Amino acid sequence: MSSAQLTAAAAAAEIQAGRLSSEELVSACLERTRQVEPTVQAWQFLDEQHALAQARAADDKRRSGKPVGALCGIPVGIKDIIDTADMPTENGTVLHKARMPRNDAAVVAKLRAAGAVIMGKTVTTECAYFNPGKTRNPHNPEHTPGGSSSGSAAAVAAQMVPLALGSQTAGSVIRPGAFCGDYAFKPTHGLIPRTGVLMLSRTLDHIGMFARSIEDLALLAEELVGYDERDPDTRPRARMPFRAIAAEEPPIEPRFAFIKTPHWERVDADAKEAYGELVESLGEHVEEVELFPSAREAWDWQRTIMEAEMTANLQPLWREGGERLSERLRALIERGREMRALDYQRALRSVQPAIESFDELFTERYDAIITPPALGTAPKGLGATGDPVFCVLWTLLGMPAVTLPLMRGANGLPLGVQLVGRRHFDARLLRTARWLESALR
Amino acid sequence: MSSAQLTAAAAAAEIQAGRLSSEELVSACLERTRQVEPTVQAWQFLDEQHALAQARAADDKRRSGKPVGALCGIPVGIKDIIDTADMPTENGTVLHKARMPRNDAAVVAKLRAAGAVIMGKTVTTECAYFNPGKTRNPHNPEHTPGGSSSGSAAAVAAQMVPLALGSQTAGSVIRPGAFCGDYAFKPTHGLIPRTGVLMLSRTLDHIGMFARSIEDLALLAEELVGYDERDPDTRPRARMPFRAIAAEEPPIEPRFAFIKTPHWERVDADAKEAYGELVESLGEHVEEVELFPSAREAWDWQRTIMEAEMTANLQPLWREGGERLSERLRALIERGREMRALDYQRALRSVQPAIESFDELFTERYDAIITPPALGTAPKGLGATGDPVFCVLWTLLGMPAVTLPLMRGANGLPLGVQLVGRRHFDARLLRTARWLESALR
Repeated sequence: MSSAQLTAAAAAAEIQAGRLSSEELVSACLERTRQVEPTVQAWQFLDEQHALAQARAADDKRRSGKPVGALCGIPVGIKDIIDTADMPTENGTVLHKARMPRNDAAVVAKLRAAGAVIMGKTVTTECAYFNPGKTRNPHNPEHTPGGSSSGSAAAVAAQMVPLALGSQTAGSVIRPGAFCGDYAFKPTHGLIPRTGVLMLSRTLDHIGMFARSIEDLALLAEELVGYDERDPDTRPRARMPFRAIAAEEPPIEPRFAFIKTPHWERVDADAKEAYGELVESLGEHVEEVELFPSAREAWDWQRTIMEAEMTANLQPLWREGGERLSERLRALIERGREMRALDYQRALRSVQPAIESFDELFTERYDAIITPPALGTAPKGLGATGDPVFCVLWTLLGMPAVTLPLMRGANGLPLGVQLVGRRHFDARLLRTARWLESALR
Repeated sequence: MSSAQLTAAAAAAEIQAGRLSSEELVSACLERTRQVEPTVQAWQFLDEQHALAQARAADDKRRSGKPVGALCGIPVGIKDIIDTADMPTENGTVLHKARMPRNDAAVVAKLRAAGAVIMGKTVTTECAYFNPGKTRNPHNPEHTPGGSSSGSAAAVAAQMVPLALGSQTAGSVIRPGAFCGDYAFKPTHGLIPRTGVLMLSRTLDHIGMFARSIEDLALLAEELVGYDERDPDTRPRARMPFRAIAAEEPPIEPRFAFIKTPHWERVDADAKEAYGELVESLGEHVEEVELFPSAREAWDWQRTIMEAEMTANLQPLWREGGERLSERLRALIERGREMRALDYQRALRSVQPAIESFDELFTERYDAIITPPALGTAPKGLGATGDPVFCVLWTLLGMPAVTLPLMRGANGLPLGVQLVGRRHFDARLLRTARWLESALR
């Protein structure tokens, strides 16, 4: 077995025990990349020598006997809207071609502090909106990998890298994660600082991550969360022991709320059947729960907030080079420019009451919500990245969400199961996810 | 001398020493009220028996030997946009006539916890905007008391009550405080929780206060600041020892920046002269400082934010009974409904950089800014409350501001001096204010 197939946790243990060097691991990942990248096209920027130099530096540090971080020598792919001071960050637009950030994003700095190797920059859709990049689904190159974190999702799935970072404003982590058969995780809004990441929407933007096990999601999340005074939505908090909690057995067997949402009718027939069987197999552990009526408007609120805030944030880009933006992005900004402050504020104010309604649901009965991550498996074609409709509610409310590659569609492509947890119960969500994964095995 | 003339700190000391009862103090204040209220018209609601019952309860508690709060037995006037569970809160509009809140506002609960007597509700302009109530200036009833905290400013000035609460979204504490010859103080945005107060603008609304000495402002502020999870702009913080710090001598003599702002030309001639003399008398302690260029737009930003947020907050009132609102308030809401989300967001985003520019000014050289609180003394006439133009910048940036009744205009009416401090250096601002007051005596 190539070390490129190892989970991050397994590789980190090998490295820390001195049985594997980071150079070997990164070399194996680069070797794998040479094989599959011509088809998958996950990378926007990858300098093999620079990755290997970081790997050797990690090995030197470990060999020197100095204490090393939890990710010592582990390569991580970084979505190309996340700034790196040593590599270009192009935000998926020709307008930012060869843009060199002055500083690392907060999350990149955290990864480096934890000893990680910043492998390269992964393909994003244009400005993390809907216009696709070049990436293809590793399970079938005629199908979309999803977006906007297309390259990160595909690189992890194709075993080019064990871990990767993405971002989600609508459904840009959970959807590509599900389409590519990854484990993908979007923690509670405000847990991971977004400083140095292309800002689309302060209210909606989240950092998320891709891995090949729940343990790896916990390992990575534990390094990324934290207060950053430059991100006004982060707060000083005690460190959350993601790995320890995710590894525990739940003290009592969890209960799930299966929520179809008002968009269930649009789910593919084979996926509907698969979720039906999943719910059936969970027996008494799951109950179908109707979404409370006010939440039915949440899709409109999310669109209103996203359009208003993206318009304000992308205004400089639109002014400088609007004609080099895709028609779809330009249309969003033109709609956003007409939006009224009253409608924007109304959407913003709807968020807190909805959060409180869900808090009650969790307090009263359930450990997690089960819901599809998308309408089905990755759609055929590379001209679109699929519909985020099954993610936007949880993004709007900043609730932690994880997708698990537990099923397959009729076409053989991965079919994810999305679990959504209570805000700030992130580690418990991963613990519940691990229980579910074991229960279904 | 009537005990109604005592400062709150002096009265509190007398009460705690058993030399004065709250019942005597409140009786004296009520007696004074009977004399001057027919002219001043500061109160929207005042139930003498209810005030006296609270006073007797405070006396009983003190006599029982139980520990009492810093405001034990001290009567406080409450602006009638601040909810009281035991008195109506009408928000200055006939649409809320006889409205009985279910709960005390957070600040009222804090006052009760500190032992204060909630004397009554003071007149506010309509919804704390510009349409005046019935109150007149105690120094000359043909002149406005200023607004929107008209009754609170007038009640303290007329010695009907030693302390009163107000609120400021543009200039509604500092301006009436200056017009009535009070000491008035608006602490840093987010220090005092606004739960249970008519919300006009989350970004701009501040609780402020009126007193007859700096020591009293410190005494009152110390009881009001605090974290409240229901006000998202408050934060858990260590308790700020307002009284102790305000009473200290500054370790080095303070330096002041005299800022005329772009609106200096509109200041009354006699006031210009008075401020000129003030600056001259401070000699080396003061330097005239030009406002940095970007701050010149702050007046537009404040108006944009105020109109957008007031429109959203007053929407239910406007829908239910728009025709019972004043023309001026209706016009604001109608303008606000047309505002674009883009312009609103742009204004919101301008705030932080301006705060940082002022932080530099303080770090480099100055302890406080000296600037007029208004265009001059209280204007003649009761149809308007004067112009907040000299307050809106500091309100927008959430900086602490205090006005001191140190001068008089050519017409013999009080002329205030506004000091503005660095955000979160509130107690130091009061210390600096005390130094200035002594230096000018």
